[in-house]
Amino acid sequence: MREVAILGIGQTPVDEQWDKSLREIAGEAVLAAMADAARDRAEGLFVGNMLSGMTSRQENLGALVADWVGLLGVEAIKIEAACGSGAAAVRAAIMAVSSGEMDCAIAVGIEKMTEGLPAETTSALASAADADYEADQGLSFVAINALIMRRYLHIYHWKHTDFANFSINAHANAMSNPFARLHETITLETYNKARMIAAPINLLDASPTGDGAAAVVIVPTEHLKPTRHPIITIAGSASATDTLAVHSRKDPLWLSAAEKSAKKAYAQAGVTPADIDIFELHDAFSIMSALSLEACGFADRGQGPRLALDGEIRTTGKIPITTRGGLKARGHPVGATGVYQIVEVVLQLRGEAGETQVPGAHIGMAQNIGGSGATIVTHILKSNR
Amino acid sequence: MREVAILGIGQTPVDEQWDKSLREIAGEAVLAAMADAARDRAEGLFVGNMLSGMTSRQENLGALVADWVGLLGVEAIKIEAACGSGAAAVRAAIMAVSSGEMDCAIAVGIEKMTEGLPAETTSALASAADADYEADQGLSFVAINALIMRRYLHIYHWKHTDFANFSINAHANAMSNPFARLHETITLETYNKARMIAAPINLLDASPTGDGAAAVVIVPTEHLKPTRHPIITIAGSASATDTLAVHSRKDPLWLSAAEKSAKKAYAQAGVTPADIDIFELHDAFSIMSALSLEACGFADRGQGPRLALDGEIRTTGKIPITTRGGLKARGHPVGATGVYQIVEVVLQLRGEAGETQVPGAHIGMAQNIGGSGATIVTHILKSNR
Repeated sequence: MREVAILGIGQTPVDEQWDKSLREIAGEAVLAAMADAARDRAEGLFVGNMLSGMTSRQENLGALVADWVGLLGVEAIKIEAACGSGAAAVRAAIMAVSSGEMDCAIAVGIEKMTEGLPAETTSALASAADADYEADQGLSFVAINALIMRRYLHIYHWKHTDFANFSINAHANAMSNPFARLHETITLETYNKARMIAAPINLLDASPTGDGAAAVVIVPTEHLKPTRHPIITIAGSASATDTLAVHSRKDPLWLSAAEKSAKKAYAQAGVTPADIDIFELHDAFSIMSALSLEACGFADRGQGPRLALDGEIRTTGKIPITTRGGLKARGHPVGATGVYQIVEVVLQLRGEAGETQVPGAHIGMAQNIGGSGATIVTHILKSNR
Repeated sequence: MREVAILGIGQTPVDEQWDKSLREIAGEAVLAAMADAARDRAEGLFVGNMLSGMTSRQENLGALVADWVGLLGVEAIKIEAACGSGAAAVRAAIMAVSSGEMDCAIAVGIEKMTEGLPAETTSALASAADADYEADQGLSFVAINALIMRRYLHIYHWKHTDFANFSINAHANAMSNPFARLHETITLETYNKARMIAAPINLLDASPTGDGAAAVVIVPTEHLKPTRHPIITIAGSASATDTLAVHSRKDPLWLSAAEKSAKKAYAQAGVTPADIDIFELHDAFSIMSALSLEACGFADRGQGPRLALDGEIRTTGKIPITTRGGLKARGHPVGATGVYQIVEVVLQLRGEAGETQVPGAHIGMAQNIGGSGATIVTHILKSNR
């Protein structure tokens, strides 16, 4: 296995893109990444997507997008792991290049989810959960997360308001991100007064959906010529799974697949949590931020909210998270999210994150979650700057 | 890249399996393959599936099936490439093991498609075509193939009845296959008189859908201990794409992705078409058999039906195809089909194909097609017996 690098990145705004089709949105991100990498060819395309069959009646996305971006004929497939599809596609591209099978592979995450009725999207999103034992009981995805959060508050004695800073920090960091869905500063007061969605989850605990795509170009590090950017290498890439149904887990408040994939990635990269300068985590709901921080070793069990309360998750803190807005404010186009996270880590490690740049960021981590913890993909990136 | 082998195979009957859920059908095939391989663990699971979101409202199949078969925690994803999903999943498992990333990976193709109304399934299948420019015009998948066949008859001066042997041969070969959907001998007369579906395609040109799953266990060849079976190695594995919409192709009667992936697989395996002892091709419609045979170099352009007319596609012929019934009679559970094909090649190369055993079969090929030629995956297998 040879070392690989992310040579180019691209992303579209996360928004309601009524005037653009699925392939156009995906193509915009791929072409931006190819331009950034100064490459006009690739040997493979890995498309991360969850909902296209249900929301756009379109499958076979690999071939569709390959043709659209001028890569007609190359190997191309779609990879699905619910909301973890994006990072799973990046991991597939990494494996294709690190194995020597390809010398250049592109991963793109794409989701177009604002076209249908909201109820249809909610129903489609429930397919990330166990259809026979969760969704069939009427549990929507937010309802599952609400049950997890309610239990967390009960077991670890936190109040709902203790989660406020996860959302406040995300919204603050999105303000300068031109690709973010929400540009709106929120305060403790707006958080506390937000409309209830599924108690105890309110509107400001939940990430907005949206249309969007993000892409990366993966090449071997060997023979890489100097570019205008620092070289960003993949130091760790790992994926693990858990039961789909939360009720089947030994501890519903522990993301065992996050722990497994993070530990594997740490070992590959030869680092510990203390070495991570920024962490783009999967804050689909504020409770997931706490669970990820704990499972990845940044906080003790049940103590995730402490990092938020103490301001340690800000760009100036011990473990900056959601530095470009996270799922909460950059937005959550589900199958694309994992690639957005990696693109954002690359921006930080290149020193191109503008107003939310974490000073001296050198090692970054991204963690993408499919379902309520069922499929979790963790990447660790390093900069040579 | 190290050489890899298929150590175990498993399959379920292709049928209407009303009493079994998606995970149960997939699990049956995976557990059969693990038992055949005498392995009770694996490091990764690659699930090939096209329709689960649309027909069962279930995504995140990787984690779902991994948990069900007792592989809780392992890396697992779903791979989608329309009707080519199965072979694409096998290819992903091969790459995971040949790269050294894993020492044992399982690929399973699963489709459960008889639950919904037939019209819903037809609509879902159309998502393999271009949703914006084909399906949106009311073109169903059979209609697209009908246009291709009509043009083929016109350009190359064949009559519809000249395709009869593709279907007659498939039905004959399925008679002794306990996993086949159709056990019914057909004749030239029944073929010619079959009910019209979308002219010129009649009922006996078209493959039946069904519920089913097939699985393979992939391991490195090195250090492989002798088993009761001959060792079946992967000699070639390649994938290529074309435009989704048939009207965008330079020649709508030429499967360029079949040619590309087959040529690459031949080169990897160091063989020519003349060396292939059996060929499991993607006979979703009889016209596709002709096109595949031509694109892969077994017949001149426009001359595919000649092989059928001359009986050269029978198990005793020059290039035996659909030796276990093919899509036409074994059945076409779309996302599973590509794995069924590979399982059937393994049976032939092991010498375990019973009444339809091709004597001395030593090198076999399987080709799986997603869409009307958009994503094509070709594998070449060799036996050491």
